[in-house]
Amino acid sequence: MKTLVTNAFVLDMVGDTANIEKKDILINNNIIEKIENNIDKNIEVDEKINAKNMLVMPGLINTHTHLAMSIFRGYKTDKKLMDWLEKAIYPVEDKLEPEDIYWNSYLSCLEMIKSGTTTCNDMYFGMNKTVEAIENTGLRAVVAWCIKDDSIKDKIEKTREYAEKYNKKDSKIKIYVSADAPHTCNPETITKCVDLAKQLNTGLHIHLAETSAQEKKIKTRYGKRSTEYLNELKVFDVPVVLAHGIYVSDSDIEILKNIRGGISHNPVSNCKLSSGICNVVKLRKNGINIGLGTDGIGSTSTMDMFEEMKTAAYLPKINSIESSSISPYDILKMATIDGAKVLGMENEIGSLEPGKKADMIFIKTEKLHLCPDTDICSNIVYSANGADVDSVMIDGKLIMQNRKMININEKEVMRQVKKIAKRLL
Amino acid sequence: MKTLVTNAFVLDMVGDTANIEKKDILINNNIIEKIENNIDKNIEVDEKINAKNMLVMPGLINTHTHLAMSIFRGYKTDKKLMDWLEKAIYPVEDKLEPEDIYWNSYLSCLEMIKSGTTTCNDMYFGMNKTVEAIENTGLRAVVAWCIKDDSIKDKIEKTREYAEKYNKKDSKIKIYVSADAPHTCNPETITKCVDLAKQLNTGLHIHLAETSAQEKKIKTRYGKRSTEYLNELKVFDVPVVLAHGIYVSDSDIEILKNIRGGISHNPVSNCKLSSGICNVVKLRKNGINIGLGTDGIGSTSTMDMFEEMKTAAYLPKINSIESSSISPYDILKMATIDGAKVLGMENEIGSLEPGKKADMIFIKTEKLHLCPDTDICSNIVYSANGADVDSVMIDGKLIMQNRKMININEKEVMRQVKKIAKRLL
Repeated sequence: MKTLVTNAFVLDMVGDTANIEKKDILINNNIIEKIENNIDKNIEVDEKINAKNMLVMPGLINTHTHLAMSIFRGYKTDKKLMDWLEKAIYPVEDKLEPEDIYWNSYLSCLEMIKSGTTTCNDMYFGMNKTVEAIENTGLRAVVAWCIKDDSIKDKIEKTREYAEKYNKKDSKIKIYVSADAPHTCNPETITKCVDLAKQLNTGLHIHLAETSAQEKKIKTRYGKRSTEYLNELKVFDVPVVLAHGIYVSDSDIEILKNIRGGISHNPVSNCKLSSGICNVVKLRKNGINIGLGTDGIGSTSTMDMFEEMKTAAYLPKINSIESSSISPYDILKMATIDGAKVLGMENEIGSLEPGKKADMIFIKTEKLHLCPDTDICSNIVYSANGADVDSVMIDGKLIMQNRKMININEKEVMRQVKKIAKRLL
Repeated sequence: MKTLVTNAFVLDMVGDTANIEKKDILINNNIIEKIENNIDKNIEVDEKINAKNMLVMPGLINTHTHLAMSIFRGYKTDKKLMDWLEKAIYPVEDKLEPEDIYWNSYLSCLEMIKSGTTTCNDMYFGMNKTVEAIENTGLRAVVAWCIKDDSIKDKIEKTREYAEKYNKKDSKIKIYVSADAPHTCNPETITKCVDLAKQLNTGLHIHLAETSAQEKKIKTRYGKRSTEYLNELKVFDVPVVLAHGIYVSDSDIEILKNIRGGISHNPVSNCKLSSGICNVVKLRKNGINIGLGTDGIGSTSTMDMFEEMKTAAYLPKINSIESSSISPYDILKMATIDGAKVLGMENEIGSLEPGKKADMIFIKTEKLHLCPDTDICSNIVYSANGADVDSVMIDGKLIMQNRKMININEKEVMRQVKKIAKRLL
């Protein structure tokens, strides 16, 4: 199957400065074949997409999610992380049935696609139903069973089973191992997870230094900082996605400089739960890959990566009282190619280049709130929102066109999730 | 003319806790006549609006704008306030023609309406053209000629002329006096502005304590804080809108406790320009009215008050590391009834009650990113954005329906503003 996208303004996210040009894009099955000015319009293709007045850019990459948490939107919000988890979330999570996880995940996937995300990195439990939802919506994803000290055996088996099935060339789903967090996993659990990641030749997804309370707990328990603790457990021998990474010291940065993967920065969740501000400017200066993530809907209330981009742009400026601390293009990199690096997928996704997977979003630019178009990157970061995404292509296939999800009944998904919320909340 | 809105979920913004009920609303010309369960559907009306699956709430009130600055969207962003003003903005402002001010203001008005704002409070120069744009779009507004030390006489005359014409019962436009800021106006200028406001029986709009550099300048020049300085000049004898109010001390708060009007909090602008964080929690605790504002598009890049609501909710939580510091309902109050109080218009707008002006917005709630609907206020603040506003009524008249502006050519406005940007930037 060949697809030709014509008349697009392409923001390819290649290189250190924005490159926006009117180009055509030829797609061969799921791969970008050519991006050139004026590809022959008479070339034989199966589908033509006229992208007039559209900015076409790589699909956004959400590097830290808990898809099945969508029923927690607005549920007992405005609490601190541990208080919220222990009093509001954990008691309900215990009651989640597989079918609930399916529909909750399905809603999160659709919400992401509708706001321009084409890849996510998910960790939770009951992931077989989440994988089913991801496959049925067409999203690309890295997926992991979140392992804590209990039920390790079962989750390790599941991880192994799914990794053997999915970790193949051209699979849209990739299985990672996940240890929940330093404060919820004892050293043996973490070591088992690292060993499993090595055996499966995959990476590890873990929460790190999200709150000062967690960091204190680790210090009390092990006499060291959580980054040091993970380093001693050889966690950084495998590629990692470190969610949050707020409380990291200069000596931690020395450790993190050498990791493969990187940190998933979740600015909205960090604000809303009063967790703290991740110093992305300093981390990036030290060569550490920083991607953006929404976290679960319970903590963030939205899966819209445009909101993460805005907040990621605001926080360094307000934190350092230095408005030039981070540029719109840097923010866009965090949401695309740097996110791909965090997931170890920079050769496949994150930019629009020949040979890469055809994951791209079409943003309608002829809108009042995006006018004038003096600085497109600034407009995308500061002025656009998820509703400006007109169409979404994942793996060469249009999943949404003109804001309509193709072959998906949105109303039914909402009906199911409301029913679950009514039953459990 | 009578209008009946049926089947609405009404969030009336009356009282200290959210009150959401399925109700009908009867509107008599520009005034809300009744809000009741099941108003007789056979009542004779000129227009019926079926608000099924819509949340109907008061129109949002943007308490600090510079409408004519829309061409500055994305123009030399990521600079500090004074640097940005002096190097990027002032040189271009000098070249703005009356026609430019008209189209730039027009675009800002439309952008506001499309994202749910029904009233704004504007200060700039060349305001006669801005007033024309406001009238042609149907917005409600408080308007002021921004007075600095130069060209006082002309602006005072204009203010007087327009106040005499517009400051009448039932006028949608109300004229305020505006002195730009303590650091750009000498004491004589400010005193003249206060005297004029007294003569015209109106209020005063002024920037206050936006950056620490400005505050320092005032301290050096007058040996006191800017709030003290304004107090000594008797500024608070008249109702005031104080834009920003970031650098206020405990002794300043003692002064501000007694003012009429209040502070316009502009969280996005304050972040983006690295100005600082206004301590709204403390100010509100001291009984000071706090409204929300976008500032000009140049500094904020968007007129979407939903973005201000989100950022206003995040900042106290991250600043105080206390996630319960402000609730979604408090944020909604700031965007509606408290904003009305800041403008001295709380008897006319800001809540949905019989006798008040029929300024209301219709938000489509059957959307993936607003599902489930466990906490509607939380969803509106944290999950919704301007694009969720389906319809807008101002002064009893539908200005936007199903996201289409009625009798307005959006494309022509964008064409004009792009032409101006091309000429000047």
